[in-house]
Amino acid sequence: MGALNGFFYPRTELGTAGVIPAPPWFYSGDLLTVEYRTDPARVRELLPDPLDLAEEDPGAVAMIWADWQSCSTDRAELLDPVRSQYKEAFVVVRCSYRGQTYSRCVYIWVDKDFAIARGIHQGYPKKLGSIWQTRPHPFAQAAPQIGPGGAFGATLAAGDRRLAEAVLVLREESATNGFVNGHPMAHHRIYPGIEAGSPDAYSELIASSGVGFQRGQAWTGDVELRLFESPTEELDRLRIDEIIGGYYCQVGTSWNGGQSLERLAPL
Amino acid sequence: MGALNGFFYPRTELGTAGVIPAPPWFYSGDLLTVEYRTDPARVRELLPDPLDLAEEDPGAVAMIWADWQSCSTDRAELLDPVRSQYKEAFVVVRCSYRGQTYSRCVYIWVDKDFAIARGIHQGYPKKLGSIWQTRPHPFAQAAPQIGPGGAFGATLAAGDRRLAEAVLVLREESATNGFVNGHPMAHHRIYPGIEAGSPDAYSELIASSGVGFQRGQAWTGDVELRLFESPTEELDRLRIDEIIGGYYCQVGTSWNGGQSLERLAPL
Amino acid sequence: MGALNGFFYPRTELGTAGVIPAPPWFYSGDLLTVEYRTDPARVRELLPDPLDLAEEDPGAVAMIWADWQSCSTDRAELLDPVRSQYKEAFVVVRCSYRGQTYSRCVYIWVDKDFAIARGIHQGYPKKLGSIWQTRPHPFAQAAPQIGPGGAFGATLAAGDRRLAEAVLVLREESATNGFVNGHPMAHHRIYPGIEAGSPDAYSELIASSGVGFQRGQAWTGDVELRLFESPTEELDRLRIDEIIGGYYCQVGTSWNGGQSLERLAPL
Amino acid sequence: MGALNGFFYPRTELGTAGVIPAPPWFYSGDLLTVEYRTDPARVRELLPDPLDLAEEDPGAVAMIWADWQSCSTDRAELLDPVRSQYKEAFVVVRCSYRGQTYSRCVYIWVDKDFAIARGIHQGYPKKLGSIWQTRPHPFAQAAPQIGPGGAFGATLAAGDRRLAEAVLVLREESATNGFVNGHPMAHHRIYPGIEAGSPDAYSELIASSGVGFQRGQAWTGDVELRLFESPTEELDRLRIDEIIGGYYCQVGTSWNGGQSLERLAPL
Repeated sequence: MGALNGFFYPRTELGTAGVIPAPPWFYSGDLLTVEYRTDPARVRELLPDPLDLAEEDPGAVAMIWADWQSCSTDRAELLDPVRSQYKEAFVVVRCSYRGQTYSRCVYIWVDKDFAIARGIHQGYPKKLGSIWQTRPHPFAQAAPQIGPGGAFGATLAAGDRRLAEAVLVLREESATNGFVNGHPMAHHRIYPGIEAGSPDAYSELIASSGVGFQRGQAWTGDVELRLFESPTEELDRLRIDEIIGGYYCQVGTSWNGGQSLERLAPL
Repeated sequence: MGALNGFFYPRTELGTAGVIPAPPWFYSGDLLTVEYRTDPARVRELLPDPLDLAEEDPGAVAMIWADWQSCSTDRAELLDPVRSQYKEAFVVVRCSYRGQTYSRCVYIWVDKDFAIARGIHQGYPKKLGSIWQTRPHPFAQAAPQIGPGGAFGATLAAGDRRLAEAVLVLREESATNGFVNGHPMAHHRIYPGIEAGSPDAYSELIASSGVGFQRGQAWTGDVELRLFESPTEELDRLRIDEIIGGYYCQVGTSWNGGQSLERLAPL
Repeated sequence: MGALNGFFYPRTELGTAGVIPAPPWFYSGDLLTVEYRTDPARVRELLPDPLDLAEEDPGAVAMIWADWQSCSTDRAELLDPVRSQYKEAFVVVRCSYRGQTYSRCVYIWVDKDFAIARGIHQGYPKKLGSIWQTRPHPFAQAAPQIGPGGAFGATLAAGDRRLAEAVLVLREESATNGFVNGHPMAHHRIYPGIEAGSPDAYSELIASSGVGFQRGQAWTGDVELRLFESPTEELDRLRIDEIIGGYYCQVGTSWNGGQSLERLAPL
Repeated sequence: MGALNGFFYPRTELGTAGVIPAPPWFYSGDLLTVEYRTDPARVRELLPDPLDLAEEDPGAVAMIWADWQSCSTDRAELLDPVRSQYKEAFVVVRCSYRGQTYSRCVYIWVDKDFAIARGIHQGYPKKLGSIWQTRPHPFAQAAPQIGPGGAFGATLAAGDRRLAEAVLVLREESATNGFVNGHPMAHHRIYPGIEAGSPDAYSELIASSGVGFQRGQAWTGDVELRLFESPTEELDRLRIDEIIGGYYCQVGTSWNGGQSLERLAPL
């Protein structure tokens, strides 16, 4: 038989059973972002060697909700939307590596397995969660519009506990959609060793960015964010000391791989 | 204590624990409709006395997917969107009652409990299902637009079986969004008697319509629809003999009660 | 056509599409019960006319978790277990009606639609929730046994918020499984009027009991219970003033209708 | 900061946010197994180098449903059972490696994220699915017993499509629980390279076995199995040519790492 086909597991001769097809992957969706400052020491707790705190505003955090439709090159998922739609909530900080500033996703929850599998490839530490985000709609009976006064809520739960919730009321157009998630991502991809107590069998620091990113007009406004405790999460350790801003925008993007920055294991 | 407060169960002195607040209820959402003709005898099987087949085109059926955001008067659900978003797939036929033509929902699946409770009030025979529908988005990376060539899929499953799926490719603007779901709804509301084998304790034929209905431009195109069998469903008995058309549009509406047409039990 | 067939909606000529078949319904399952005392005034808030507080121990409350397998007469659900297994968490108080003591379920959450439909018939105010309960198992690697030291947890969430959680550590056999849920149930069955603001179209006070109830040895032990707040629930108003006891047992039972105690609407 | 703590992602200084704690992992559960023969060429399609078909009965396949409770060393998951209970359905074949026979899981679906993460560590190709399996219970109202005539159903769905279903009616005690899943597991653990189109960054063939496996009396009987097609699965290519047997048993076991057989990438 030799080599089987397929990008990720399970690989087969036909190559159609894999949990995800190969990149590129395409995305259209809506982002609700809350940026705030926490104690930089709490960010530092989440940065393994060889990463360090970002030089400027090292305690800046972005908590982001995203309501996505996604697909691979043949776009077949779009006509069977149980395979293309997913929601996620994630936390991004910035870090420094060899004098460059990177963004880094430190926590993330999604609601589909294909999103988990993509995340493992990309170094996003994905768990399952229940994520909800108010949608804009042309008819206002039960929906905000993306404009002054538009009110958007967002919630995250996992393990049957609510972990975070936000409310953003739009006020005005914004030149930016925030700054914390604006750099290339620096992520670790790890595989613990198979023997009990052994070191990592594989560990690599990689960088990646979206390709062909497009963004609609961003809006900013008044925002509230609450984080809740859970015995299996550390999200609420990133205590909200000062809100920087809240943002809403619609985006389209794609992803087609990244670059290895450093192989950490096996050396 | 006397009377408790709240629209539907459970009622309490405070009145805040009820599964749904009182109407009016407000809706913003996207509809994908497939109309087709089946054997009128199969429609007749679903019409209890005193309803009869519609005089014109009595075998016409509409299978409709809807992706909703909804709320009640205080709009609190919109900021906690797990309580406002739901999806549904439903089948509508037409019928005749005292010389008037009505629409009638004969099967419907939703994915939230508040939608089930509203449906019981309105006479929709709601079950739980898993419903998915392609979403339009301003950015085309992983989304159709509402325009020529826009391709939308929709699926329905219940009991871990796929029950229906459709694909609609838009071609041109349409003067209508179909005709089968265009009349006031004539629904039965029933409560079986509590004693084993007893007749209905309550049965009423009611009519209702949306209030303040608004609709964006409707589109039509090429459509495919497939229905699958299940031991606990009869959906596939409404065999697709001839496709009438497929339609896509965005709507906003509200609902604020209906009228009793006839009390059937207790007499 | 005349009368259609089927116990509850949707009714059809074939009668196989209904959300639930007719009773009798059969149940095998495991119960974890926590009984405690709250302020009787808080129980009174949940008792509509013509019910009153129970004469003895009027503030007694039972919070019960149940992990069920269930079926109807043809037992077909047992071989397609997505249709037979469900979990529930519910709160029972006692009340007095015409000099007799009844049990009454004031809040209940389940995780399947057939359970909601049965509950509407029986007057249980069912919502959807996420319910989990530790299971005993013959092999102890990852399970308690029903015996001294056996530790059982139970949780309830709805709307992506945790509402209640309990831990029970068994100590000894118990002569009872508690007393709060030990009477016939007195429930209201209601259907709000279809016209906006109208009185109930149907309201009936009914009584019912299980048939052929069997119970294994009950166990009691040390128990903790926590209730959490939610904007759409009043569960935490039933404040835990004093724990009465915690119980675990396995049961089998059936249900085959009840009796009308009083028709309240239409009069 | 240096090294962070935690077994798998996300790693933090505190080490409590990881998707799974380190092994050992403990399991108590019920297994329903159907063994059958397919065309060995179809098994061969699933065996990458350096694996080959097993020498004896190379077309033998086991489709297994498991209803698990599981935990790690501190057993905290058992008292918050949303974190300990999960169900899975998986397909096992046998293969030959350096003259030894191994079992190998070629497809598997689970319903929790911690089970996905454990599977990635162990080389199980886990996707999300909806899995249901009839439970035995001491009270027969709505449950089989593990004994003659006991009837157990099992179903698997993913992507809102039913993929497999089985019915097993027990007849007699069995000396074995089947033979296909009886060897150490030989699994690949892979991480695709981060650059588009690059070879695997990590690929290792590993072996592992349960530790301290205990099994109750196994039963065998009459069994039916059906596999269904899906555009994203190849399960039904393992066509059922001849049923070998059906088995039911309860087990307890643990897992505490494995051994590397061969590093395939990076070389």
